[in-house]
Amino acid sequence: MALAAEIDKQAKGSAKSGLEPLSALVTDDLQAVNRLIVEHMQSPVALIPQLASHIIAAGGKRLRPMLTLASARLCGYEGERHLGLAACVEFIHTATLLHDDVVDASDLRRGLATANAVWGNKPSVLVGDFLFSRAFQLMVADGSLDVLRILSNASAVIAEGEVLQLMTANDTTSDEAAYMQVIEAKTAALFAAACRVGAVVAERPAAEEEALERFGSCFGVAFQLVDDILDYSALQGELGKAVGDDFRDGKITLPVVLAFQRADEAERAFWRRCLEEQDHRDGDLEQAIEYMQRHDALADAMGRARDYGETARRALDGFADGPAKQALLDVVEFCVDRAY
Amino acid sequence: MALAAEIDKQAKGSAKSGLEPLSALVTDDLQAVNRLIVEHMQSPVALIPQLASHIIAAGGKRLRPMLTLASARLCGYEGERHLGLAACVEFIHTATLLHDDVVDASDLRRGLATANAVWGNKPSVLVGDFLFSRAFQLMVADGSLDVLRILSNASAVIAEGEVLQLMTANDTTSDEAAYMQVIEAKTAALFAAACRVGAVVAERPAAEEEALERFGSCFGVAFQLVDDILDYSALQGELGKAVGDDFRDGKITLPVVLAFQRADEAERAFWRRCLEEQDHRDGDLEQAIEYMQRHDALADAMGRARDYGETARRALDGFADGPAKQALLDVVEFCVDRAY
Repeated sequence: MALAAEIDKQAKGSAKSGLEPLSALVTDDLQAVNRLIVEHMQSPVALIPQLASHIIAAGGKRLRPMLTLASARLCGYEGERHLGLAACVEFIHTATLLHDDVVDASDLRRGLATANAVWGNKPSVLVGDFLFSRAFQLMVADGSLDVLRILSNASAVIAEGEVLQLMTANDTTSDEAAYMQVIEAKTAALFAAACRVGAVVAERPAAEEEALERFGSCFGVAFQLVDDILDYSALQGELGKAVGDDFRDGKITLPVVLAFQRADEAERAFWRRCLEEQDHRDGDLEQAIEYMQRHDALADAMGRARDYGETARRALDGFADGPAKQALLDVVEFCVDRAY
Repeated sequence: MALAAEIDKQAKGSAKSGLEPLSALVTDDLQAVNRLIVEHMQSPVALIPQLASHIIAAGGKRLRPMLTLASARLCGYEGERHLGLAACVEFIHTATLLHDDVVDASDLRRGLATANAVWGNKPSVLVGDFLFSRAFQLMVADGSLDVLRILSNASAVIAEGEVLQLMTANDTTSDEAAYMQVIEAKTAALFAAACRVGAVVAERPAAEEEALERFGSCFGVAFQLVDDILDYSALQGELGKAVGDDFRDGKITLPVVLAFQRADEAERAFWRRCLEEQDHRDGDLEQAIEYMQRHDALADAMGRARDYGETARRALDGFADGPAKQALLDVVEFCVDRAY
């Protein structure tokens, strides 16, 4: 279980990511989840645990499984089912990361070489498939059709969101509505499902399931907005993710949409050259950031993130005060604040 | 429903594949399954049905869903659940094909350009993920945890088999045991699951579930053995698949294992150059076939396929005679015979 210990250590080291309130709340549960993750990613086919541990031990923040743990706690759950289901949520997330790295040809994730850069595309796709299947095996062992419905729906929506993101990439005519549709699907759907599962294991009324789903969905949108803003921020380097990845990939995120809408013709020509023609020159990223600042694109996107964060927090109004509620409220605030 | 009609027509056209006994038995059910497939591969994200229909309409034999339909019939099932579950089986198979084409960088499948050659690797991976998720959504709608267990287990085993196949590729020291492990996982597991599901919906005793699983597993091994033999056969061109694909990819199939074991040093040098160093020259495929024939490698692999086919057929001994049993017995014989 050396790997599980290493994972625990790295999770503690990720304090600067803004997740302290959550990780403090669920420390013991999260260690149990890390042990389950390591146990269930084993296979007689040696390359599978090798590759899976590369990405799983790479210092992931475990945000999504922590949401399942904290939501279950918020609902007063005292059993152990939330541990296995939190591991499922992380397996689904890891599978999408593996497939995302393949499709984006990314070179870095969390400051480390991506699995596909080390082993090639082939094993990354297949180990992603393995982890995804393993998630469903774990859900079947848990035995709740409601959980299976929530997470299979989320998985289908995530895939739709990823395809939609591909279709809008390099297209400067793609608008804010398309961007919101992408992030609600590729990011918010799993946040929402992770939270809702916490209420399901606690056998709470439908209204509480729905409130937690709303919380997760709005938090997911706020989280992705901030992530997309940070891709144009000097702070980003400190978070271990390369600055300017989205810009180089031609992803149409909200800061780009806003800057393009407000641009004059010369600026639009710049955006088209960089994002559509993928013709990149020295100083382009700095120029992009300058245009964004000129038109308040980053500040307005941050405003949007704050609004979604506030809506997420209000979704918890009906729950009793206590450490779980406070941690969930705080983590939203801290995550939005990481952009400062 | 124009697509469903086109699919039905192509399925009828695939008579030469040796599946006539099965397709004659389940004609009406299969048309209903094709309609369900088309209905459930829809998505507001236009590229998903576009790409999915490309691969699904590409004249797939629908062998695996037909096994579910025929097994249900064999078990006396008279409801409609087998239709949706047969569609699930085909979705899982299609997802693995999409991912398999990506990882193998194949140029042709069933004589048509692969989805990844038309759209690139990215959408193929993601649409595969979508179809896989959709399969689980359909299973959840069906509501049987037994079915979910059988098909999630099969999915994990398939991914393990595909990774193992990668690990043994280009390695002439890889042996018969490793080859059997690969094909039992990557092919036989889904055949076995497809058959077992037919007994599950009919609520038959465990012994019948297990008998159908054994039938599917042995049939799957026989089927894959024949497929691997045909890759070195002149007949292959008529089946719409390029001859010599496995040879060029360096896959270590049974004909290769047997020919290499029985080879002298000069022949071994040839196999190492072609399969390990991937140094291919004009006439290599013909030379490989000549060496295989010299050492009875193809004939002995066929003998093995016939043995597995016979074991499959014997697994049905306990079932009452009738058209369903006869079709299943015949399809095994016809599939093994396609190599002549």
